[in-house]
Amino acid sequence: MKTTQHSGSITFAKGFLASGVKCGLKKNNASDLAVIHSEAPATVAGVFTVNQVKAAPVLLTSKRVASGSARAVVINAGNANSCTGAQGLTDAEKMGSLLGHHLGLPDKEVLVASTGVIGRFLPMDKVAKGIEEAARALSVEGGEEAARAILTTDTFVKEFSMTVTLGGKPVRLGGMAKGSGMIHPNMATLLAFITTDAAIAPEVLRQALGQAVDASFHCVTVDGDCSTNDMVLVLANGRAGNKPIKAMAGDGAKFAEALTQVAQELARRVVLDGEGATKFISVKVLGAPSFKEAREAAMAIAKSSLFKTAMFGMDANWGRILAALGNAPIKINPAKVDVSFGGLKVAKGGCAVEFSEAKALGLLKRKEVEVEVNLNLGKAEATVFTSDLSYDYVKINASYRT
Amino acid sequence: MKTTQHSGSITFAKGFLASGVKCGLKKNNASDLAVIHSEAPATVAGVFTVNQVKAAPVLLTSKRVASGSARAVVINAGNANSCTGAQGLTDAEKMGSLLGHHLGLPDKEVLVASTGVIGRFLPMDKVAKGIEEAARALSVEGGEEAARAILTTDTFVKEFSMTVTLGGKPVRLGGMAKGSGMIHPNMATLLAFITTDAAIAPEVLRQALGQAVDASFHCVTVDGDCSTNDMVLVLANGRAGNKPIKAMAGDGAKFAEALTQVAQELARRVVLDGEGATKFISVKVLGAPSFKEAREAAMAIAKSSLFKTAMFGMDANWGRILAALGNAPIKINPAKVDVSFGGLKVAKGGCAVEFSEAKALGLLKRKEVEVEVNLNLGKAEATVFTSDLSYDYVKINASYRT
Repeated sequence: MKTTQHSGSITFAKGFLASGVKCGLKKNNASDLAVIHSEAPATVAGVFTVNQVKAAPVLLTSKRVASGSARAVVINAGNANSCTGAQGLTDAEKMGSLLGHHLGLPDKEVLVASTGVIGRFLPMDKVAKGIEEAARALSVEGGEEAARAILTTDTFVKEFSMTVTLGGKPVRLGGMAKGSGMIHPNMATLLAFITTDAAIAPEVLRQALGQAVDASFHCVTVDGDCSTNDMVLVLANGRAGNKPIKAMAGDGAKFAEALTQVAQELARRVVLDGEGATKFISVKVLGAPSFKEAREAAMAIAKSSLFKTAMFGMDANWGRILAALGNAPIKINPAKVDVSFGGLKVAKGGCAVEFSEAKALGLLKRKEVEVEVNLNLGKAEATVFTSDLSYDYVKINASYRT
Repeated sequence: MKTTQHSGSITFAKGFLASGVKCGLKKNNASDLAVIHSEAPATVAGVFTVNQVKAAPVLLTSKRVASGSARAVVINAGNANSCTGAQGLTDAEKMGSLLGHHLGLPDKEVLVASTGVIGRFLPMDKVAKGIEEAARALSVEGGEEAARAILTTDTFVKEFSMTVTLGGKPVRLGGMAKGSGMIHPNMATLLAFITTDAAIAPEVLRQALGQAVDASFHCVTVDGDCSTNDMVLVLANGRAGNKPIKAMAGDGAKFAEALTQVAQELARRVVLDGEGATKFISVKVLGAPSFKEAREAAMAIAKSSLFKTAMFGMDANWGRILAALGNAPIKINPAKVDVSFGGLKVAKGGCAVEFSEAKALGLLKRKEVEVEVNLNLGKAEATVFTSDLSYDYVKINASYRT
């Protein structure tokens, strides 16, 4: 696969415009409303939160995505439009129809996403003005401002783009995401949008997205431990002029691989910007009977508040890893578990081994920490990414709403 | 039921002696080894961690408790003797046999418990000296020092005792516990010991303890989310001279009720002393189809780091409650959920209702906060106790081991 990589934005793929504007939803008067627009008809696929409590935009957009085509997305930050009942649904629909009106699109071609505080109605007058302005501001240059507008507690813009050559034609993919904020504790709000000029059938796009999300966002956040607003969307408008992809084999596989790479890079940036995070931690579990069990085990460790605070404190406390594993929803044999930090073995067969505390501290002082756990039960492995749990995490979350 | 309550200790019941000594396992040179001794033969029951990784003393003591009788318990703090393999088991057995030797008891009558850092071998020379000294120091007055010796990051001693009259005879119960430290995140280490002079059959004692733990410790820590060392033991030596309890009816029910009360009071103190806790939070879930589902729902809320940090920040962020519920392993109908803080309704039918932020802040400023969630799906209810998540929680856990 021939690929070239760029740090472009959501408008990197041909035929996509974007914009980000301020409409007064954020306390700090930053950009808070973004629009993505495909100049040509586009196929669409999406992955949505499995939380039983679904925000209005999730209910609306998941329904519209099922048709397989969409031309535009409007996203607001600062208000999640979640736990807002019938009024919330009306407001989400109104967001879509306002943008559709300005762009000359039928409502069903417009998707809606929101993130922010739960349980407050959207101030629709502000939102309406914002949508009008954002529709007017659409441009190829608007990608970065769009990426900025969807942020909440994120400290940096998250974008990634790349080109993959399919049958001699360059096919572009560009994406933007907002930090999950609380990557590990449940109720992360994760939004990610990816555009591509690939020509691809909706069913194949759906499969490719499923594969990409499984190997990216599902490895940084917990399956089933979702916020009320999580959403990953991909739009493909065919402007690359490649031979339309109709199956997951051949070009389909290449495309899926590229889409996975974009999703992984966005997921990686989300972890790097975890709330209060001082470290990027990869937890690799080897020797599991299956990938699913390996991921469950890695998740159990990556989710543990005690493990995460130990990482913040640069404490080689491998006992917390064993204890987290022992509570994981998979069968382990404690007496077979080996643990290493950055290649330094700290436990073997579930027991302490002698190791240099100084060397361990040196490894744990790094910004990126690698934890490797071998269950010695099989051949499958999985890696999960997380951040540490710091004072700032508490600070950010103690007064998020007020 | 006629009961009188005292703030006595583990030696409140007739025929029990205790002691607490320093043997050098704790960094701060505090008492770290405790012994409980029944002067008469006693029946015993225990509840143990369900973590797949079980510390050596848990493996040993759970086996010995199965016999239904025991006379003494030795407990050390500062070292969990967990993830220590065959050496750990040998050490735990040695602790038991050393105490048995000093007290003239067969090994099988001596139980062992440990709490502290995981993955380090016990310094047996220090432990042996400590056991010898503790055996010599046994007395009725030694209860409080024993309660102090079992603590780790706890900030106060946890004791409770009471008297219940059974068939005209006063029956005494006394207990001590060590703070779960990390009440909510998994891997809490909880130790609780209760003594009573009741005459009771082992099988009934077992049932009564199961009932008591279910309504106490299982409502502050998560079922299945246990440390490698959790243990609750009860010893009953019959010195009260009551008619031996042989069934859960009549006196058996009264005794179980008293045992439950002791367990609840100890559990309450554990929550009050949660690591870095500034608040005592009760999460009551009503309108559930069953008690089990009510408790699952309450646990899902009480476990949420986001909910707990919001409580620390005195933020009436009920959206996080809804989101936590939506991820709970029970079926809910989001559109039916009502939420109140201290009687102030903040959400109805899953939606925002108007409420006074000032009034909410006033309620959330209190040391004790009550959260009430009605699922409106049935008639069962459950209450779970937790603490908030503060800066100090991170501080304590970031450098626990080193």
